Amino acid sequence: MNNSRPESDFVKPGERVDDLELNGLKIIQDPGAFCFGTDAVLLANFAKVKRGETVLDLCTGCGVVPVLLCGKTAAKHITGLEIQESCAGMAARSVAMNGLGERIEIVAGDVKDARRLFGSQSCDVVTVNPPYIESAAGVLNACDPKTIARHEILCTLEDVISASARALKMSKRFYMVHRPERLADIMCLMRQYGLEPKKLQFACARAGLAPSLVLVEGRKGGKPGLKALPEIVMEELGLYR
Amino acid sequence: MNNSRPESDFVKPGERVDDLELNGLKIIQDPGAFCFGTDAVLLANFAKVKRGETVLDLCTGCGVVPVLLCGKTAAKHITGLEIQESCAGMAARSVAMNGLGERIEIVAGDVKDARRLFGSQSCDVVTVNPPYIESAAGVLNACDPKTIARHEILCTLEDVISASARALKMSKRFYMVHRPERLADIMCLMRQYGLEPKKLQFACARAGLAPSLVLVEGRKGGKPGLKALPEIVMEELGLYR
Repeated sequence: MNNSRPESDFVKPGERVDDLELNGLKIIQDPGAFCFGTDAVLLANFAKVKRGETVLDLCTGCGVVPVLLCGKTAAKHITGLEIQESCAGMAARSVAMNGLGERIEIVAGDVKDARRLFGSQSCDVVTVNPPYIESAAGVLNACDPKTIARHEILCTLEDVISASARALKMSKRFYMVHRPERLADIMCLMRQYGLEPKKLQFACARAGLAPSLVLVEGRKGGKPGLKALPEIVMEELGLYR
Repeated sequence: MNNSRPESDFVKPGERVDDLELNGLKIIQDPGAFCFGTDAVLLANFAKVKRGETVLDLCTGCGVVPVLLCGKTAAKHITGLEIQESCAGMAARSVAMNGLGERIEIVAGDVKDARRLFGSQSCDVVTVNPPYIESAAGVLNACDPKTIARHEILCTLEDVISASARALKMSKRFYMVHRPERLADIMCLMRQYGLEPKKLQFACARAGLAPSLVLVEGRKGGKPGLKALPEIVMEELGLYR
């Protein structure tokens, strides 16, 4: 579904509109803040969403994962949560521009408030492309939107995983993209919060290089037993940036 | 160093001698029991052993990892521990046949007795190619040597990791090959026992296939932070069996 108003009604000065090459879907981005990357596209491809399921996308940023999931799946409803107000506003305008207001809601708020905002055991799928880098004492500009998107300043990996575990219905699914450097943290925290790691997939830029991203599926209350999937070579998918 | 006696002095009926294609080293195997596989070769390639270091190889089986490490590294001394008496005897004969008795000792004993046998903080490197499969109630033949080598009947993953953590000196290194299915167990148990996962490498049979083996390096008392290495494609190494 597309709306009938022109793009210019939705886009602010300095922003740009990118074509997602999927059913005519588009996304508004602010090159001065933070633009989505290959990781968000991989996450949206990796997440399995069944017909009629509800999805919560944490750290949604410009809302690219909810918009892609709308295009790729028969999800009933997708909520995107973003702590940065300006970014949440831009994501909401992308939703409206694509005419997806009935399937996607963007909420401005904190991952740590997810239980209050959405309740417990309220969704079938959680997706998240969180900040990757552990916050060091010496981060220079903790108010910069790019820094907030990349560093664990406003939420940690544990905040993300604990909020996801609470939000999911029993036996439902969690999907995250992250850096391999954090894999031990990811496995241990997922298990600590009852999200059993069930699938794992590395992605590397080119064949023969070390993986730079890892995709993980967890199942709330699942039994141990992980399936490692064939490595993704981003260059072969046209995703190497 | 090679001994001067003929191979036939060391080999029992039903056993065979395989050439390891490394400095003329050979290994005695019993096709009726359990023969080493690609996993042992990958483990010996993966483990970093510095000049003068001491190594403990748990679940050593026919002793192929100690013999390969003798050929590849300047390890001062390698101890191989094997619970199955007949297998330990065969490994000791391989060591003698290769004239490596001054650098390798094979001990018949239980991983769970490793502290009593070798003391705490006694070695620089632990290597282990343990049984991969969690023991189910329904294992048919728990006395069969192949079953013991493959299933966690006589030692569990936790036994292996806890014994390794005790045996290693602080900040020294642990190397294990295992199945990706157990990766969450591996990461969580390693961290629980103070062996921080530092390197991880998947191996798949052919490019584009799911990984069938995982190699992990841990460091006793190490800081969090995992390096994922480029995937090994066994076919390209001539290791696809």
